Amino acid sequence: MITLYELKGAGGRLYSLFSWRTRMALAHKGLPFESHPVPMSDKAAIAFSGGKTVPILRDGDTVVRDSWRIAEHLESAYPQAPSLFGGSIGQGLCQTFNIWADRTLVPAMLPVIVTDIHQRVDPADREYFRTMIEGILKTKLEDTLAGRDKAAERLGRTLDPLRAALKRQLFVCGESPAYADYIVFSVFQWARVMSPFNVLAEDDPVAAWRERMLALHSGFARNVPVA
Amino acid sequence: MITLYELKGAGGRLYSLFSWRTRMALAHKGLPFESHPVPMSDKAAIAFSGGKTVPILRDGDTVVRDSWRIAEHLESAYPQAPSLFGGSIGQGLCQTFNIWADRTLVPAMLPVIVTDIHQRVDPADREYFRTMIEGILKTKLEDTLAGRDKAAERLGRTLDPLRAALKRQLFVCGESPAYADYIVFSVFQWARVMSPFNVLAEDDPVAAWRERMLALHSGFARNVPVA
Repeated sequence: MITLYELKGAGGRLYSLFSWRTRMALAHKGLPFESHPVPMSDKAAIAFSGGKTVPILRDGDTVVRDSWRIAEHLESAYPQAPSLFGGSIGQGLCQTFNIWADRTLVPAMLPVIVTDIHQRVDPADREYFRTMIEGILKTKLEDTLAGRDKAAERLGRTLDPLRAALKRQLFVCGESPAYADYIVFSVFQWARVMSPFNVLAEDDPVAAWRERMLALHSGFARNVPVA
Repeated sequence: MITLYELKGAGGRLYSLFSWRTRMALAHKGLPFESHPVPMSDKAAIAFSGGKTVPILRDGDTVVRDSWRIAEHLESAYPQAPSLFGGSIGQGLCQTFNIWADRTLVPAMLPVIVTDIHQRVDPADREYFRTMIEGILKTKLEDTLAGRDKAAERLGRTLDPLRAALKRQLFVCGESPAYADYIVFSVFQWARVMSPFNVLAEDDPVAAWRERMLALHSGFARNVPVA
């Protein structure tokens, strides 16, 4: 039995972007799992993991924290299921890509959707989230909202390389999706679950790719509560 | 017989960054080749290729242009030699990474070293290069030089994700180098061949990785004329 600990939003929304990497990896591997959503402020609920953040995967007696470590675990524990990386070169490059995405895409998306996220976290987390995120962004949420148009422009520029890549091939990983697709997708699913803001124009190749991602694994990512 | 058409700099310097991707790919595959350096302004010399830029690879009767297409050619034509991508997932992700590097690392490095490049191109290319590059940068070379310290700071920030990745693993592709390493290395080799400017601090993990890259294939990239 596999259990995934992830963030609990209002109205059943599952909004941990890093947990979406794990969710998609589990679906890719065809592994059933039980979701265990917890409020962000409830650190006691995840103290068993030895850490303070989700995702946490409990797989039998094994507990794994951190989405990248979880992906490595799934790849080595379930080698017969479809591969997330396609071998050691793909896995190494994917770790580099993972860090690249975390340090460019995530900070570009955050200011665009953060005020919407604040309104949709679990009610118990409202003040906790504001304090944490205003510390990270060093701005009041209201001021971040006032700068949203500029942030959206910056996001558009940050997506340029991805846009060019997706004009050449169907997926980040080529003809078929693999873990690097889930890395990028998690950022857009985070936005989709928590914000009504249109982060992509309809004719953007990235939007067409997002539709392909939403169709994967029988609409696994499409059929969830969203903004 | 394989022939590589690449850029001819002053004093035997080989400075086409994209050709360095091909050079390293050929060394990785263990394929001997003959270098055919041409001045940048001599478009007649490469007209046979149907294009106006190097690298161009002539492999028997096959002519391939564009470093990415050349890498794909080498991988499919020499499948028994060490792989550049490690399979289809790695190859797809590598194409995305290639575009990402071209649109982030290359433009971050260019203003830091461009005035030094100008002084080291083939003498016949001096004016051609200035006109071309001032058109691309929309600035006089002298003004680009005046802004070098700021450009170097921007480069440092652009390298942050790579720096973080190389703290976790020895190479961009994990435990061993593969084509994505050559993509990034080409940008540093371009700088090394043409500019005395220190683009990396000695204690930078990226500098340690660059040393590992220079040691590959019997010092293949180290033992060339440099700035």
